[in-house]
Amino acid sequence: MQMKTHDTLFGSMSIPMLRARYRDGSLTPAQLVDAIAARTSGDDPHRVWIRPLSRSEMMRYADALESRDIDSLPLYGVPFAIKDNIDLAGIPTTAGCPAYAYTPTESAPVVARLISAGAIPIGKANLDQFATGLSGQRSPHGACRNALDPRYASGGSSSGSAVSVAMGLAAFSLGTDTAGSGRVPAAFHGLIGLKPTKGVLSTLGVVPACASLDCVSIFARSTSDAQTVFDAARGVSDHDPYAREFQPPATIARDSGPSLRGMRFGVPRASQLEFFGDTSYAHAFGAALSRLRDGGAALVEIDFEPFLATARLLYEGPWVAERLAAIREFSDAQPDALHPVIREILGGAARWSAADAFAAFDRLAHLRMQAAEVWDRIDVIVTPTSATTATVDELEADPIRVNSRFGYYTNFVNLLDLSALAVPAGVCALGKHEGLPFGVSFVARAHEDIMLLDLARAWLDETSPKQQPARDLSLGESNDRDE
Amino acid sequence: MQMKTHDTLFGSMSIPMLRARYRDGSLTPAQLVDAIAARTSGDDPHRVWIRPLSRSEMMRYADALESRDIDSLPLYGVPFAIKDNIDLAGIPTTAGCPAYAYTPTESAPVVARLISAGAIPIGKANLDQFATGLSGQRSPHGACRNALDPRYASGGSSSGSAVSVAMGLAAFSLGTDTAGSGRVPAAFHGLIGLKPTKGVLSTLGVVPACASLDCVSIFARSTSDAQTVFDAARGVSDHDPYAREFQPPATIARDSGPSLRGMRFGVPRASQLEFFGDTSYAHAFGAALSRLRDGGAALVEIDFEPFLATARLLYEGPWVAERLAAIREFSDAQPDALHPVIREILGGAARWSAADAFAAFDRLAHLRMQAAEVWDRIDVIVTPTSATTATVDELEADPIRVNSRFGYYTNFVNLLDLSALAVPAGVCALGKHEGLPFGVSFVARAHEDIMLLDLARAWLDETSPKQQPARDLSLGESNDRDE
Repeated sequence: MQMKTHDTLFGSMSIPMLRARYRDGSLTPAQLVDAIAARTSGDDPHRVWIRPLSRSEMMRYADALESRDIDSLPLYGVPFAIKDNIDLAGIPTTAGCPAYAYTPTESAPVVARLISAGAIPIGKANLDQFATGLSGQRSPHGACRNALDPRYASGGSSSGSAVSVAMGLAAFSLGTDTAGSGRVPAAFHGLIGLKPTKGVLSTLGVVPACASLDCVSIFARSTSDAQTVFDAARGVSDHDPYAREFQPPATIARDSGPSLRGMRFGVPRASQLEFFGDTSYAHAFGAALSRLRDGGAALVEIDFEPFLATARLLYEGPWVAERLAAIREFSDAQPDALHPVIREILGGAARWSAADAFAAFDRLAHLRMQAAEVWDRIDVIVTPTSATTATVDELEADPIRVNSRFGYYTNFVNLLDLSALAVPAGVCALGKHEGLPFGVSFVARAHEDIMLLDLARAWLDETSPKQQPARDLSLGESNDRDE
Repeated sequence: MQMKTHDTLFGSMSIPMLRARYRDGSLTPAQLVDAIAARTSGDDPHRVWIRPLSRSEMMRYADALESRDIDSLPLYGVPFAIKDNIDLAGIPTTAGCPAYAYTPTESAPVVARLISAGAIPIGKANLDQFATGLSGQRSPHGACRNALDPRYASGGSSSGSAVSVAMGLAAFSLGTDTAGSGRVPAAFHGLIGLKPTKGVLSTLGVVPACASLDCVSIFARSTSDAQTVFDAARGVSDHDPYAREFQPPATIARDSGPSLRGMRFGVPRASQLEFFGDTSYAHAFGAALSRLRDGGAALVEIDFEPFLATARLLYEGPWVAERLAAIREFSDAQPDALHPVIREILGGAARWSAADAFAAFDRLAHLRMQAAEVWDRIDVIVTPTSATTATVDELEADPIRVNSRFGYYTNFVNLLDLSALAVPAGVCALGKHEGLPFGVSFVARAHEDIMLLDLARAWLDETSPKQQPARDLSLGESNDRDE
């Protein structure tokens, strides 16, 4: 019976499914915790966890739900993973650097809100150290392996967060996203990855990477789960200098039902698309565009250069010094405590002067103005989420250059104050990466997060109801391993 | 007859006066230009000008008004001075550094708008080189002298702009204001100095000081003249990366007439007020507060520390590197072309790293949040505009330290994205600076510029109709000198 619970539970975990089972009495939060503990307390070949919660640690949260009404708690009994640069009360926060660890007495406000809504934290997930990377391979706890094919990278920096959901251990998870860390791992696992508008999810209690750019992000298996979590996680916290009130545009009529019809999708000119020789991804993107058009969307070619120039500014410019500023005292005191790749990257920050930083801000102000012109002609930009994928071995051989390819389509988003959603777009049909998932990103202006979720819902439901193979794959594989 | 025109014209120049005389035929724009040229073509002991316009250069603008309807042009025939870091087509822009000079083919949009509204430019005014200073003494064209007492500093960096208005040569003038340059010289001359909300007056065609903080400012003799100019100067320009649409709060009922009654004026705690031993200013500020209370305002003590900490951040922090970034190519190529004090200041920028800059931005984000709390309790902050004044000799002896005292109450305004208005507050009644003007600043949130003008109008009209001695003094003195 326990085994059977496993199979059906982890094979199709979603918020509505959990709620239905809690309601019909076929599952209780305590039983769920038992089942999760049985899976997370053993081996961890994918290196999902830095610190899974023990059965008793999880059970406290399940017990607290006992007298509560499921109808008043949108996340009643929903298990979630937390990237280990976000505080959970009483559990160490390491940011992937054991020497940096501290144990917070309070949860980050965003975590506290989810727990208040009934969610059950199940562990602190592996990450690229100090959230610096898009590969998931820069962790002293081991390279995080792709849930679908462990030869491949998980993507990062929110690696364990994505893998925990892809493996069916968590219904959703929290990541962070500065340059693409909440989107690239979603793409590599066929998941929804919501990088919300800057400031609408509090970054209090989050170890800063680039404090002015950091966002808390959400991994989920469906747009509706992502939205349920997003709705529960929002809220302005006192004393949060980067907080912004969520102000969705009034024009969105939610009740009319989402549709792609008539929506104008901006697509970079062919010459501005980059796949680093990856024909699998190039073909998959072409197929995704066809399906968008079939769904009724209007495809509009745009000049992507202001976006690419902004992406280069983040990657090749002084913002690495913002990462250094966040942990300077620690890194000055204990440079050897850093992962070698992180040490090399942060070491490069020293060459940037304050005058360089100000020159870059002025350049960014100009790029932001140029990029903004595109919104007169389109509603949303669609790009691949990552330009290519790579194996763990390929990343180990050339960790910085290969990693940077993953950010070609993501790096500009936070500098331009945009919202973004990584959306599964089937599997590669041919080429080197045949059978691996491919993902696209929908990008819109700040505060248009709900529109992005609606468009993704329309795209997933209307044009390809049976896609999202990643989920089945992941669950099959993880079940095999456990049982 | 020409003499008589001078006297009455320059003794009481205001926009309504000029319009009345144009309408009744007692003056034409061409006659005005003749009169101004007679005064600006001679000696310039106060060092007002870097480049006064010639009679023929001014006459072109007067001629262009010939067939125009005065009713359609709110600034018909109104003479104005332009700080020489703002472009006027066909006239060199030097920023107070002859080696840096270039001749723009187009006027800055803000200048073009004023000319379109009928205003007549009369010259490019002296300034602290590259708008770096609050003293008016850092110019290779000579220290700009106070119009009321030439032993005293004019204040800067918009020195010539303020002096030209105080001497009655211009009805208004344009300055720029990054740290207080549009307010300190107003205080030293008993003028209105409007430092508008960042971005609502275009800074295109302005030599940047700190590009992210720079504002074009307005000097005028009355709040109504300042508002007429502000209304004509506003407008979003294409290709202006720092432009913002002016969005005055809807709650302001302009027609009810301005009043101080019930308005809550925040006043720094006594321990947070600083006068650098200047009893003249300390007493004058006390008197100003009494008059505010007499006018019906509620005085509310506030914790000024977040504002002071922000001011220190600007003055002692990495923003000096933003000034360097703006002219780095030039200053690297021709370091000897810089004024020695400016060279010393910009030289200090080298010690700031990009990580320092990002750390300062994060600190600013926290200070901004703390400072914003005050607006729950008050409508406007009132402080002295400058903490003290100084003679030209005192500034020459200690140019950086004495200058910095002038910015104690101004430096925080643009970093915190506030609007500010320097308002005349009578003359010092006793002490070292007896008889010299004293000024206060009203500071409010962004986009509340009109409220500030309304409050100043109420303050000047309701509580002290006969003050503003600076005007009479200035005109008396300059007339003596000229005639």
